[in-house]
Amino acid sequence: MSMPRQTSLSRLLVACPDRRGIVAEVSRFLNDHDANIVENNQYSTEPSSGLFLQRTVFEWGGEGDPAEVLGAAFAAEVADPLEMEWRFEDAHRAKRTAIFVSRYDHCLLDLLWRARRGELPIDVGVVVSNHADLADDVASFGIPFEHVPVTPDTKAEAEARQLDLLGDDYDLVVLARYMQILSGDFLEKAGIPIINIHHSFLPAFAGAGPYRQARERGVKLIGATAHYVTEDLDEGPIIEQGVVRVSHRDDAVELERRGADVERTTLARAVAWHCEDRVIPTGATTVVL
Amino acid sequence: MSMPRQTSLSRLLVACPDRRGIVAEVSRFLNDHDANIVENNQYSTEPSSGLFLQRTVFEWGGEGDPAEVLGAAFAAEVADPLEMEWRFEDAHRAKRTAIFVSRYDHCLLDLLWRARRGELPIDVGVVVSNHADLADDVASFGIPFEHVPVTPDTKAEAEARQLDLLGDDYDLVVLARYMQILSGDFLEKAGIPIINIHHSFLPAFAGAGPYRQARERGVKLIGATAHYVTEDLDEGPIIEQGVVRVSHRDDAVELERRGADVERTTLARAVAWHCEDRVIPTGATTVVL
Amino acid sequence: MSMPRQTSLSRLLVACPDRRGIVAEVSRFLNDHDANIVENNQYSTEPSSGLFLQRTVFEWGGEGDPAEVLGAAFAAEVADPLEMEWRFEDAHRAKRTAIFVSRYDHCLLDLLWRARRGELPIDVGVVVSNHADLADDVASFGIPFEHVPVTPDTKAEAEARQLDLLGDDYDLVVLARYMQILSGDFLEKAGIPIINIHHSFLPAFAGAGPYRQARERGVKLIGATAHYVTEDLDEGPIIEQGVVRVSHRDDAVELERRGADVERTTLARAVAWHCEDRVIPTGATTVVL
Amino acid sequence: MSMPRQTSLSRLLVACPDRRGIVAEVSRFLNDHDANIVENNQYSTEPSSGLFLQRTVFEWGGEGDPAEVLGAAFAAEVADPLEMEWRFEDAHRAKRTAIFVSRYDHCLLDLLWRARRGELPIDVGVVVSNHADLADDVASFGIPFEHVPVTPDTKAEAEARQLDLLGDDYDLVVLARYMQILSGDFLEKAGIPIINIHHSFLPAFAGAGPYRQARERGVKLIGATAHYVTEDLDEGPIIEQGVVRVSHRDDAVELERRGADVERTTLARAVAWHCEDRVIPTGATTVVL
Repeated sequence: MSMPRQTSLSRLLVACPDRRGIVAEVSRFLNDHDANIVENNQYSTEPSSGLFLQRTVFEWGGEGDPAEVLGAAFAAEVADPLEMEWRFEDAHRAKRTAIFVSRYDHCLLDLLWRARRGELPIDVGVVVSNHADLADDVASFGIPFEHVPVTPDTKAEAEARQLDLLGDDYDLVVLARYMQILSGDFLEKAGIPIINIHHSFLPAFAGAGPYRQARERGVKLIGATAHYVTEDLDEGPIIEQGVVRVSHRDDAVELERRGADVERTTLARAVAWHCEDRVIPTGATTVVL
Repeated sequence: MSMPRQTSLSRLLVACPDRRGIVAEVSRFLNDHDANIVENNQYSTEPSSGLFLQRTVFEWGGEGDPAEVLGAAFAAEVADPLEMEWRFEDAHRAKRTAIFVSRYDHCLLDLLWRARRGELPIDVGVVVSNHADLADDVASFGIPFEHVPVTPDTKAEAEARQLDLLGDDYDLVVLARYMQILSGDFLEKAGIPIINIHHSFLPAFAGAGPYRQARERGVKLIGATAHYVTEDLDEGPIIEQGVVRVSHRDDAVELERRGADVERTTLARAVAWHCEDRVIPTGATTVVL
Repeated sequence: MSMPRQTSLSRLLVACPDRRGIVAEVSRFLNDHDANIVENNQYSTEPSSGLFLQRTVFEWGGEGDPAEVLGAAFAAEVADPLEMEWRFEDAHRAKRTAIFVSRYDHCLLDLLWRARRGELPIDVGVVVSNHADLADDVASFGIPFEHVPVTPDTKAEAEARQLDLLGDDYDLVVLARYMQILSGDFLEKAGIPIINIHHSFLPAFAGAGPYRQARERGVKLIGATAHYVTEDLDEGPIIEQGVVRVSHRDDAVELERRGADVERTTLARAVAWHCEDRVIPTGATTVVL
Repeated sequence: MSMPRQTSLSRLLVACPDRRGIVAEVSRFLNDHDANIVENNQYSTEPSSGLFLQRTVFEWGGEGDPAEVLGAAFAAEVADPLEMEWRFEDAHRAKRTAIFVSRYDHCLLDLLWRARRGELPIDVGVVVSNHADLADDVASFGIPFEHVPVTPDTKAEAEARQLDLLGDDYDLVVLARYMQILSGDFLEKAGIPIINIHHSFLPAFAGAGPYRQARERGVKLIGATAHYVTEDLDEGPIIEQGVVRVSHRDDAVELERRGADVERTTLARAVAWHCEDRVIPTGATTVVL
């Protein structure tokens, strides 16, 4: 008696110069290789001759990992002729994630709790903090907590230790209110995407103390911005933003409380989209397919 | 010297039993016929063996109307083998629209103003009202206004007159706070989609006086629902909904004012999506691609 | 050497038949007794001859508890002549709270986090559940967890046990997705406010399975409703409501996830307002001052 | 036979150094003079020794205009001893308003519609534009339209003509997408509040071309800001802000359309609150009572 083959869900991500017929070519290839398209999104950065981006989700009835089985043929038949960058991703595989945090717990706990519920496709391997405050909270989730203090003098050592902890094991770093600036050297050596949550509606109130700035300027809404980290502080490509209404009655403490809610939901959405391979940085901005 | 051919934007809408390879087949056909896919959305009502729906926007470099030029070949090569319902739509053609209204002006004026600005792809051919109040407002837009009074005794005649006004000239009727119930007979004879705006967050507060009901029940948000009209009053497939926050301080008049804002924006979004061929009724619900 | 007296923040809540001069009378009394008004809200249920409600926050420079020191004089001078119901509340005192929960953890954890962060003025004395699943989560907050199973046969005993656990120690019960119906007998004997979170935008989708109902009806927004519990299931006075946008792509599991976020924020707001003595039930509705 | 006296609704606005007993003093005065408080809001800019602000709405059963009848007594008994700035306002009197506009019609039409429907307590006496485009639209509302072209060379004359049109007849100027900068000299001579709508979520994207800036920065929400005009461009006290979600798919034209909706609703709310005497500028910010 033979068992039915299990179908598995995979994603194909492609980027290439826009031209006629790309959708048809990719669709034909997948169809010819026993792959059924279940979701398909594309976008061109310009009406013509821009960058073409596509995210295709497909069920594969074949044996083995589609990336390995289909890769060589896809490159030869489709990707190379069309000058594509491309990759296959297993839709069932959670991204291996390290979370960096300082003292505020709200973003960290929200991510850990969503991951535990199965809401976020992340596999949190370590939480790194420059303070020891949150060690017990993290322990209660059964996740290793690493205390790596950072001072101006020890920053280089601290970053070396952080890179050591990451090794080659991680797909993603999330800065869940991590109050240290990572050096360009760290970003380069880490070599993986880093998502930060900034507690303002960027580009308003970049830099330090955004809630204080917001109160002084008398804005009627405050926000949070999740973005990829680049060397230019608070300038990285924006993934997601959220806002919440405030009033003159909200003092700095209350702004921080209200902001905390929008920070954690905004960061959770950005991390989810990233881990579903929906977010494609395109220079200073992102496309979310 | 030859002029460059103008490209035109068209849409292909298909619905068929879900099976493997539909996206690939449609893409191949379009590519083979000089059509470049610029947007592509699909959805299956069930993970397997459901109804497959696709909306494809393409640039066509060929001569003439794609529906005429490509229709026969598409039927033979793709649609018939896959048991498809399908149609081509010219993306540049505004839907010919009749608006029915009673005395409230806010939804009507919002639609007329958006159409004039080029925001809504509708071509309003007539405004029909059971009251004469809004005649001048409509006249200032240069659109014919037809006063068709309705009483219990004259309802049949009134509907006959309305059907007469519609003739075969219209693609769509919008009920912009039209306070009369259209008979099943009218719906059948009109034979075109009819979109209504109901001034509540359906299925809450169906029927008459939703703002009064909302106040009595003490809800903290009120809403509006744009839906296709069916014989079952307030039960047609929902296209779009909106809400706005209210409080105990808002009396019936204030609820109506706040509701008016959410009614007009909700209706405008629903009409826009319908006219972009994004909305597909699927039994009691809709899919918005 | 004398120490400066500490000022303390108190609230005075009054309800009485509306008539001229109430604000002036209450203000005069407080001013005469060394109390400085810092916030003052009032509302009349009708333009005239309705119910007058007022919530006044004041700093008291006097010694002792304002309720004890001022109570007799307030009754004699103001409350009795104006036929008032009234009470003083210490604004620094957290409400003693019991949380009832079944298996879903999101509302429970959100309340416990917020309480721990000092965001919610509640002092959680016990978590009661008809399942044992969440015992460890609650233990990690250092709060007693009581497993009180409920079956149709043991419901009376279970409620007796629950009443026993409450004793006279509690100000509030919060049903944080507690999937049992409390009997009218329980409500009466408990004699304290009980807040429930219903996972729909009431009055839409009352009863069981609201997310399934929402999907079948094809709504474009789902919601959550926090309300006081009365004997009429899902009919108690609404305190707060929230909504979130959904689409045809969201299956039952995804609706539940999105709903979970709006449930927990809506419940947290309702509990906060209740504990700040802002919410006044007025028959089938509430006033939130 | 004597007719019942008509009650009228008035507002008393006060600002003074914060100290104990202000609420009680004002309440006592109104009560002693046959005025029944129906709404009362106050705010102190600092927990102690800040600026105290109060807005009181009262029904007056007396004869004549409360400002005239009560003014001298209020000054002598309450305002002078407490060093108050104060004024009485008739709640039934619409603010006499001039609207300045350039070519975009959406904010202008929204204000005129709302005023006509009785939603906005403004009495629009004139629309002034530096272009002739909107003359017919304004004429259809029966409101005078004044075309005052502005060039760098004629700016001084143009402002003189505008001041002439205003004379002493106006309470408020609304800039409904008026694309000229008013000189400090104009602001001073006009001597009345001027409300502007800026098409961004200030302080983000101040200056020219905010939608283009927003697209380049890749933000996921765009906004609008209604603020009082001061000599510092885009720096005046913010009255109200609104946002709307956008994506990478929205080009500059679509951003402008979506922005137009949030601009007109944000401006309408700000004008309504101003005209209800709720908005009090406090340096760089506002208090909205």
